[in-house]
Amino acid sequence: MVRLSNGRGSPREAEPSRRGPRREGERALIEWVRQHTPAMRDRVPVGIGDDAAVLRLPGAGLLLFTTDSVLEGTHFPSRRASYRLIGRKALAAALSDIAAMGGRALGAVVAVSLPGKTRMRAARELHRGVLEVSARYRVPLVGGNVASWQGPLALTVSVVGVPAGRKPVLRSGARVGDVVLVTGELGGSLLGRHFRFEPRLREGEWLGRWGRVRALIDLSDGLATDLGHILEESGCGAVVDAAKVPVSAAARRLARRTGRSPLEHALTDGEDYELCLTVADREVTGLLRRWPFETRLTVIGRILKRGYWLEQSDGKRERLTLAGYEHTFG
Amino acid sequence: MVRLSNGRGSPREAEPSRRGPRREGERALIEWVRQHTPAMRDRVPVGIGDDAAVLRLPGAGLLLFTTDSVLEGTHFPSRRASYRLIGRKALAAALSDIAAMGGRALGAVVAVSLPGKTRMRAARELHRGVLEVSARYRVPLVGGNVASWQGPLALTVSVVGVPAGRKPVLRSGARVGDVVLVTGELGGSLLGRHFRFEPRLREGEWLGRWGRVRALIDLSDGLATDLGHILEESGCGAVVDAAKVPVSAAARRLARRTGRSPLEHALTDGEDYELCLTVADREVTGLLRRWPFETRLTVIGRILKRGYWLEQSDGKRERLTLAGYEHTFG
Repeated sequence: MVRLSNGRGSPREAEPSRRGPRREGERALIEWVRQHTPAMRDRVPVGIGDDAAVLRLPGAGLLLFTTDSVLEGTHFPSRRASYRLIGRKALAAALSDIAAMGGRALGAVVAVSLPGKTRMRAARELHRGVLEVSARYRVPLVGGNVASWQGPLALTVSVVGVPAGRKPVLRSGARVGDVVLVTGELGGSLLGRHFRFEPRLREGEWLGRWGRVRALIDLSDGLATDLGHILEESGCGAVVDAAKVPVSAAARRLARRTGRSPLEHALTDGEDYELCLTVADREVTGLLRRWPFETRLTVIGRILKRGYWLEQSDGKRERLTLAGYEHTFG
Repeated sequence: MVRLSNGRGSPREAEPSRRGPRREGERALIEWVRQHTPAMRDRVPVGIGDDAAVLRLPGAGLLLFTTDSVLEGTHFPSRRASYRLIGRKALAAALSDIAAMGGRALGAVVAVSLPGKTRMRAARELHRGVLEVSARYRVPLVGGNVASWQGPLALTVSVVGVPAGRKPVLRSGARVGDVVLVTGELGGSLLGRHFRFEPRLREGEWLGRWGRVRALIDLSDGLATDLGHILEESGCGAVVDAAKVPVSAAARRLARRTGRSPLEHALTDGEDYELCLTVADREVTGLLRRWPFETRLTVIGRILKRGYWLEQSDGKRERLTLAGYEHTFG
């Protein structure tokens, strides 16, 4: 959450708009909003700048709160996408933000803006998609809003949750010497996974309860960008081991079309919705041994004092360019 | 929240679309979503169907959760509205939903979809409006999402809160013999108040803490419609005393243009964002004596076993037609 984006859109669609003056304007807007938002640290331990906000509840306890939009033409192509998949994606992407805080989701609300001529059947399919994800992850859809309007299809899903452990896992906790890990396999989501991904809600909740994750983020804008957010928030650098990055079959298939390397797709494609985390070196063995999921969990690098590098197997380092770098509020 | 609408738009804009086959389709869609949403009463004491959802927090306590969209061309005219007022309205309308539960708002997130060519200055104005309301009501803006896209301007604001008293005040608590009251003055919001209204957040919080309100709703679709929602949810009827309805000066001004009566505007215009409540007859005197706000609080009618009537001063009753009736999930 709290990003400014032309979308976590599929790479091919989103890339052209990621650069240039508009992008600069958006970055400036974020900075402006951030500066003009009064900090109320007693009530809002984590405001603008992480995957979800953290609010202090009266009495005791912390609440996670996030919102995410899925927009026609930005996050999915107009007139070619299944309404069911769009509904599915909207809730799944918002749940991923809760996972990225080591949280447990409590409930979701969805605001739908339907083009005026939307057929009933399509509107149902949209909600069917939302309800499928709701049922699968046992996160109740507790309310919403449906309006028809003159614009294209837009869904905004907001989710509340609580930290699964004693406290939420932020982007800012990485320490020099930490090991960097990712779940799943990366890249090529454009070939279908960007609609059909499973948010790592169970994994995120487990990691939150485990309690020893130092920093956590979900991969919405691509590994290079999102790990970059951890570095930015934690004030450190990292080296990623090129040979260890889990490259998906889709990234390889896509590479055959684009002429770019599968690794490049794995590093820079958006919408993997996997989790990227850092843990202290001494905790890694224990984590990998206890990990109870089929979802792959792979060590891919290490936190450094500064710099951001991709290390090839021959030891050569290239600077990670943060291609597709997304400027967030944080 | 959880309404299906072509908008709480200003009456003149919204009315044409409120009838006819599309409206029927929307009603059917709501019914479909409601039927396909599994009840999880242990976790969601109040789901689809009130101003905000009520979630049970782990441990103890209840959470209020609502979402509301403000859409260009539906809730405000294209190209004629100030971005600052639009931002203001979006948060104020969502806060009104928390007021309508007798709640205290804890924090808000805002998802903004900006037309591609939006100027930085306009985007700032939009957020300035949101932040003004945030500061005025001390409800922190804790996060959000900004994306530019091909569509018109859309803002979706979601707010969390907690019941100010022991429990939230629902639409369903009205009992035969209760007295019906409204805050403020009604009608004619189209002339400006639909942008500049103050959500009755302090009043709603006070009423929640007072603890003796039986049923509560905010007036987004007009008194006739929204009191109708209380009746529907509570399974009873009501009589409204025509002479007692607090008709606003704007309703009178608007009536001179439209040829309809000021009372008709007060009964059916949307977007008053006042509160309508019922309390037991024996509580009314105490309530009016203790009421600490400058905001007017007026007795306008009484809850009956059945029927829905407007009573003129000569004792004649007309059936309330629920003009502009909005079909909600509940």
